[in-house]
Amino acid sequence: MNPTSCDLLVLGARQVLTLDSGEPMPPAASRLQDCRVVEGGGLAVQDGKILALGMDAELEAGFSAKEVLRLQGGVVVPGFVDAHTHPAFAVGRAEEFDWRAQGMGYVEIAEKGGGILSSVRAVRAVSEPTLGATVAGHFRRMLAHGTTTCEAKSGYGLSTESELKSLRAIEAAAKETGMQVRSTFLGGHMVPEEYRDRPDAYVDLLCQESLPAVAEAGLATAADVYIEGHAFDLKRSRRYLERAKELGFRLRVHAEQFENLGGAAMAVSLGADCADHLEALDPAGIQAMAESGKTFAGLLPAVPHFLRQNVDAPARALLEADVPYFVATDFNPGTCFCLSIPEALHFARVRLRFSALEALAGATVYAAHSLGLGTRKGRLAPGWDADFLVLDLPDYHHLGYAFGENPVAQVFVGGKATLV
Amino acid sequence: MNPTSCDLLVLGARQVLTLDSGEPMPPAASRLQDCRVVEGGGLAVQDGKILALGMDAELEAGFSAKEVLRLQGGVVVPGFVDAHTHPAFAVGRAEEFDWRAQGMGYVEIAEKGGGILSSVRAVRAVSEPTLGATVAGHFRRMLAHGTTTCEAKSGYGLSTESELKSLRAIEAAAKETGMQVRSTFLGGHMVPEEYRDRPDAYVDLLCQESLPAVAEAGLATAADVYIEGHAFDLKRSRRYLERAKELGFRLRVHAEQFENLGGAAMAVSLGADCADHLEALDPAGIQAMAESGKTFAGLLPAVPHFLRQNVDAPARALLEADVPYFVATDFNPGTCFCLSIPEALHFARVRLRFSALEALAGATVYAAHSLGLGTRKGRLAPGWDADFLVLDLPDYHHLGYAFGENPVAQVFVGGKATLV
Repeated sequence: MNPTSCDLLVLGARQVLTLDSGEPMPPAASRLQDCRVVEGGGLAVQDGKILALGMDAELEAGFSAKEVLRLQGGVVVPGFVDAHTHPAFAVGRAEEFDWRAQGMGYVEIAEKGGGILSSVRAVRAVSEPTLGATVAGHFRRMLAHGTTTCEAKSGYGLSTESELKSLRAIEAAAKETGMQVRSTFLGGHMVPEEYRDRPDAYVDLLCQESLPAVAEAGLATAADVYIEGHAFDLKRSRRYLERAKELGFRLRVHAEQFENLGGAAMAVSLGADCADHLEALDPAGIQAMAESGKTFAGLLPAVPHFLRQNVDAPARALLEADVPYFVATDFNPGTCFCLSIPEALHFARVRLRFSALEALAGATVYAAHSLGLGTRKGRLAPGWDADFLVLDLPDYHHLGYAFGENPVAQVFVGGKATLV
Repeated sequence: MNPTSCDLLVLGARQVLTLDSGEPMPPAASRLQDCRVVEGGGLAVQDGKILALGMDAELEAGFSAKEVLRLQGGVVVPGFVDAHTHPAFAVGRAEEFDWRAQGMGYVEIAEKGGGILSSVRAVRAVSEPTLGATVAGHFRRMLAHGTTTCEAKSGYGLSTESELKSLRAIEAAAKETGMQVRSTFLGGHMVPEEYRDRPDAYVDLLCQESLPAVAEAGLATAADVYIEGHAFDLKRSRRYLERAKELGFRLRVHAEQFENLGGAAMAVSLGADCADHLEALDPAGIQAMAESGKTFAGLLPAVPHFLRQNVDAPARALLEADVPYFVATDFNPGTCFCLSIPEALHFARVRLRFSALEALAGATVYAAHSLGLGTRKGRLAPGWDADFLVLDLPDYHHLGYAFGENPVAQVFVGGKATLV
């Protein structure tokens, strides 16, 4: 039989972690070992898609490739999917980081001009091309750390105009860098200064002007709200989310980060794709998420570290209740200045006590499903997009063991090397 | 006046942090702002030494250079000095990291064949060239993260022969990679299996055979012991340290990591260069260190994170008492798999509430003094070694703000680029 021709053959990996069990839906965390691991092999790519996976000998016999990449070991995994990021900010907040180190609290920082609203002032002041260039810089660094697909939130504009500008900047940055992006409108991030004493009027603006404008422009797939005492209470959040749903947005929420307000249960009741943070989630909230089984728990394990909190999301309880989950960075300038998925996986392993596979699935196959991309992204299987990484690790158990180091040696998006 | 000729001129840095206040001894932490910061300039290098520092215009007028490096901003700092590392291991312990995530404790891990003694078995089994190549791999990754000088401990051999092999492997790796190393003999790391029930006999071996052999071979500057209930008690540690001192070794100790045994106070009384860890240090220990003012507190802030401990060294109390300190990685396969000083500085900023300058001084000028290298390393001043880094940061306040990312863009050792 003649060998099949293909664009690229990758050979010589120590392991290929497919995150694929052969079923359309990914397996539960307790059955991740059902996902195929190829020992000593690689994969074939054609037209930007995975064509086949296998041992070196099988691939060499079966395929004739335009290009062959012979690895000297290393671990091949799907490109990381970072399902919770806030890249649309104009400048870092290192000064505020100092204030926090000196023991200043949230309110004091806000009063000194820090916090989310300081990022809002900066984003409003900056031009769209400048913001786009800054976001592109963030995307390039994320790509270098293995993120080939990300969810990217607006939310530092908080006016219809500045939010549209942010979403266009994200779109431009995606085009410029090759980052594959799902944009989320986060107009419900915080009540802006000019609405400080009129939060309901800001929700009116969101419902009557901002959400329709974003929907009209087709600039975001999902809408998100920060359900928290100092941001949006449950009632205002519900009004915003219901309007967003009506306009055709998928829903994602920030819930139960500091207080247990019932945000996760509401997210479930509205059919949201995810409820993220969850450090304050109570057993009733876990049960609500378990009963639905459709709203993902968005785990952001590096955040409590950055905030010096001695609390973590009840991740093991969520997994035991078969709640779907993902692991993401929450990259943002105020509460988690980390854009590296490998680092987030380290925190998942240390703080959430995840195995290497549980951590990896959280930033690949599960994250892709949480974004509605499960049939194209997040696993290495025939027909899936050829987004994959070569990690410089002796075997996959090392994933998330080292910290402060980037194990990503090579990044492929749609079968093309973006970093060598 | 004719310009002075020099080998290299570095221009265009956003900031140059000299860590130099013009005095032979570095300033206390409370007076670090006395160290010169050059805004918009660079430095001149001749014969591997810093010749001058200044603004771009001054340098361009004053010097004629064989080579000019024009930066586009960035922050120039002294090469990092990592004053506590354990690089002489043969393989990582990712499996044990899994066990720990599953909740296994120290004793259970040791019983399953993990812990320090598993590294000892691996080091004893490996050949000297193989071990040297592994250590060289560690040094290369450390260099890429900005460490130009490190203290490197043996301690996974625990027999005279395997300890000598480890120290020779460190020496060979230093030669191969250009890492500048101060070697420390850590025969007192743990009681090896064959002496399990005869710890005093192992201390006899150390005092009568190992320490003299290492001294004879000239393979280590310092001797170190792990003062802890499950390692060496105070009495055995004292016997070992007194013998080491007698043989001309400088002393460094691991003290008060889990239990307050009085190790730091003993280290002070013996004139040790440092007492490291200190998470369990009590006020009497702080006072003993403050009264001497000569024994450095070795702060290793990433370790409690890796061990999931909700405790940190009393760093602010130590600084307030003017105890000299350094910040280091404690790079090792069991309790802190992190070789990045930028990451250690992040943990210092988050967990020890250090300012950017306090963190940076801890891994440059202070660390160099703790190793007896203060007149050559750790600051950027005329006559000091031209070991310096270019960090890709907007300004020095960003140091330790991001985590999971390496800000080191360029590394110079003795005026030569080792990474571009």
